[in-house]
Amino acid sequence: MRPDAITREECVALDRRDPLAEFRDAFVIPEGVIYLDGNSLGAMAKAAPARAARVVEHEWGSDLIRSWNNAGWFELPLELGDKLAPLIGADAGEVVVTDTTSVNLFKLLWAAADMRPGRRKIILEGSNFPTDNYVAQGVAAARGLEVVLVERDAIADAIDEDTLAISITHVHYKTGHINDMAALTARAHAAGALAIWDLCHSAGALPVDLNGCNVDLAVGCTYKYLNGGPGSPAFLFVAKRHLATARQPITGWWGHADPFALTPGYAPAPDIRHFLTGTQPIVSLSLVGVGADLMRAADMTRVRTKSIALTETFIALVEQRCAAHGFTLVSPRDANERGSQVSFAHPHGYAIMRALIDRGVIGDFRAPDIVRFGFTPLYVRFADVWDAVDVLVDVMESGAWRDARYAEREAVT
Amino acid sequence: MRPDAITREECVALDRRDPLAEFRDAFVIPEGVIYLDGNSLGAMAKAAPARAARVVEHEWGSDLIRSWNNAGWFELPLELGDKLAPLIGADAGEVVVTDTTSVNLFKLLWAAADMRPGRRKIILEGSNFPTDNYVAQGVAAARGLEVVLVERDAIADAIDEDTLAISITHVHYKTGHINDMAALTARAHAAGALAIWDLCHSAGALPVDLNGCNVDLAVGCTYKYLNGGPGSPAFLFVAKRHLATARQPITGWWGHADPFALTPGYAPAPDIRHFLTGTQPIVSLSLVGVGADLMRAADMTRVRTKSIALTETFIALVEQRCAAHGFTLVSPRDANERGSQVSFAHPHGYAIMRALIDRGVIGDFRAPDIVRFGFTPLYVRFADVWDAVDVLVDVMESGAWRDARYAEREAVT
Repeated sequence: MRPDAITREECVALDRRDPLAEFRDAFVIPEGVIYLDGNSLGAMAKAAPARAARVVEHEWGSDLIRSWNNAGWFELPLELGDKLAPLIGADAGEVVVTDTTSVNLFKLLWAAADMRPGRRKIILEGSNFPTDNYVAQGVAAARGLEVVLVERDAIADAIDEDTLAISITHVHYKTGHINDMAALTARAHAAGALAIWDLCHSAGALPVDLNGCNVDLAVGCTYKYLNGGPGSPAFLFVAKRHLATARQPITGWWGHADPFALTPGYAPAPDIRHFLTGTQPIVSLSLVGVGADLMRAADMTRVRTKSIALTETFIALVEQRCAAHGFTLVSPRDANERGSQVSFAHPHGYAIMRALIDRGVIGDFRAPDIVRFGFTPLYVRFADVWDAVDVLVDVMESGAWRDARYAEREAVT
Repeated sequence: MRPDAITREECVALDRRDPLAEFRDAFVIPEGVIYLDGNSLGAMAKAAPARAARVVEHEWGSDLIRSWNNAGWFELPLELGDKLAPLIGADAGEVVVTDTTSVNLFKLLWAAADMRPGRRKIILEGSNFPTDNYVAQGVAAARGLEVVLVERDAIADAIDEDTLAISITHVHYKTGHINDMAALTARAHAAGALAIWDLCHSAGALPVDLNGCNVDLAVGCTYKYLNGGPGSPAFLFVAKRHLATARQPITGWWGHADPFALTPGYAPAPDIRHFLTGTQPIVSLSLVGVGADLMRAADMTRVRTKSIALTETFIALVEQRCAAHGFTLVSPRDANERGSQVSFAHPHGYAIMRALIDRGVIGDFRAPDIVRFGFTPLYVRFADVWDAVDVLVDVMESGAWRDARYAEREAVT
């Protein structure tokens, strides 16, 4: 690809040859919107409204309580876990969909502390999306442990004989940098520590091989690249070799060995069910299946190939057409180190992103100065990349971002 | 009411005079079904499908990430908490809707242990629905505390100077017995202990006055009498006087003082937000509002009056018409001690309930021998009570329950 010669026609031609092109038609992308924020909230599959209607009107409204058995509600966390497993290199019986990423990480960090008694340190990336770090701080405070926050290049060296676990997000939410799962997991194991991975920004975005990397425990969300819907329940992975011994502290009836016996004493289920706690939000949970089915139908190698091509094209176009406008690439230039997003720093990033959103190009802003664009290969086209940059060029050259209404900073989720 | 003289005509007349009669039309009750299991999963409001469709198709599908601000998704846990507050005798700012009952109880028991350092005992009702007891066992194991399980009449006497909290379910899931919130809370306070209440079987079923009883902490679900939909997120109450000091351990970003600052260190929100953890399942959460709005439109005193009349009628009719069939009332005979359900023990309870369900009378079975019928005043009519007993009479007199297909015990949620 010659950065100085990418035309819209070339992008359209790439779309014509795209083996994933047909997937776009399975999603709703609103008229006039170029959606580059699927790394924050994935787009809605066209099948989602009908699925929601079936769960609400039929399973709840008509079948009522009988749906716990007849519609398989009680088994959904396991069924969906098995559905996601191949997307993250896990086996059936190692994954459940339940609760939130933060609650699930609490369970796993707690379990990890028990699996490495006497060790005190949990190592996380300091600039990580902070909820994982907050949860680790909560566990550490509760158990007299120490949270060690280091930056990317210092993680490996921070691991020592007092480390009980590393708890690392696979793809950095802000920069899109991929942390080396195989190498860091091996390094942790060499020191006798556990490796916990957060897949929020990698599950569904790139091939993930938890078992191939010998990962111990993992969490992730389903509402970004897995298109499960707003706040859809999260997933949790426990490697088979740990299932018999790993124990989480939020011991509710869904994690009991025999939940319907209603015995007074808690007895942990001997399998992944132990990591469940209470009754799950069935409507939201059901929608996870719609997104997961689409992702399973796509070949993850093709997803990754297209993802790299999309981000390469975007970087090339921005650097070619906005060279005069002060954008600094924050994401890794090497595609092998980059997830499915591109971030640029710009001193007026906030106003620029507001101007873009007003013109239908939806990315997001991350303080203090980062504009972030997510590229979800199932529904973003090469022509969208070209058009998005075209709008960016216009916003910069017209000075539209200087409009007073873009100046005030508001909460951006 | 003369038990020996209740006719269907009298029941129809009661329905005609029922000031809550109009509410039934706001719910979907499937043709041919008499639904006496709203204490397990509340019926669907007619407004629920449209609300689900709006959240899925419009807020998610069309507005995408913008709905976190524009549709108020981020504020939903607090907005819904404020909506539920008057139904449970709480003030605005004391309630959030989030996570599950079990996860929320974990947070509150943990907080309670910190609020009463040095004390070791958590007292629960042994025959309670066991998830609360399991969660308490998890907290106790984590913190070196002791779970004391006693039965109803022994709770008050079990409270001593080493008790950090009682954690009691207001209405017993199996018998429908109301535990005396005011008296037990006062008894706990007299010993310096905290009072935690689980409102799963009382919120929306009878007037609850948390602040009037000086309760410290409470949890409850929204999918029973509050009609929030299957597994809809639970609620959590912290009395205003404790908000500045009570601290829960699952410290995620939604509980941070400034969640969007994304600072590396956790700082608890100074209000009820601190009890939030992670991103909530928005579709399920949104439906809680539909059920809550209906319940708020009904006067809780009228709900309670009708509830008592329904359960009195049911007990009278069963005892009048099934006297020969071996049912033993398990629920309190005194309506003042009874929630909105009636339970009878019968040696063939399982088969009888299966036969009833097959004939459209949906109640549920609780091991080892209890048939349980819930009476939800917003959509159950006096004529339904009469008709349900008529079906019961038929099942018993015809011997239909002896059918082989009702013999095998299956999981009943």
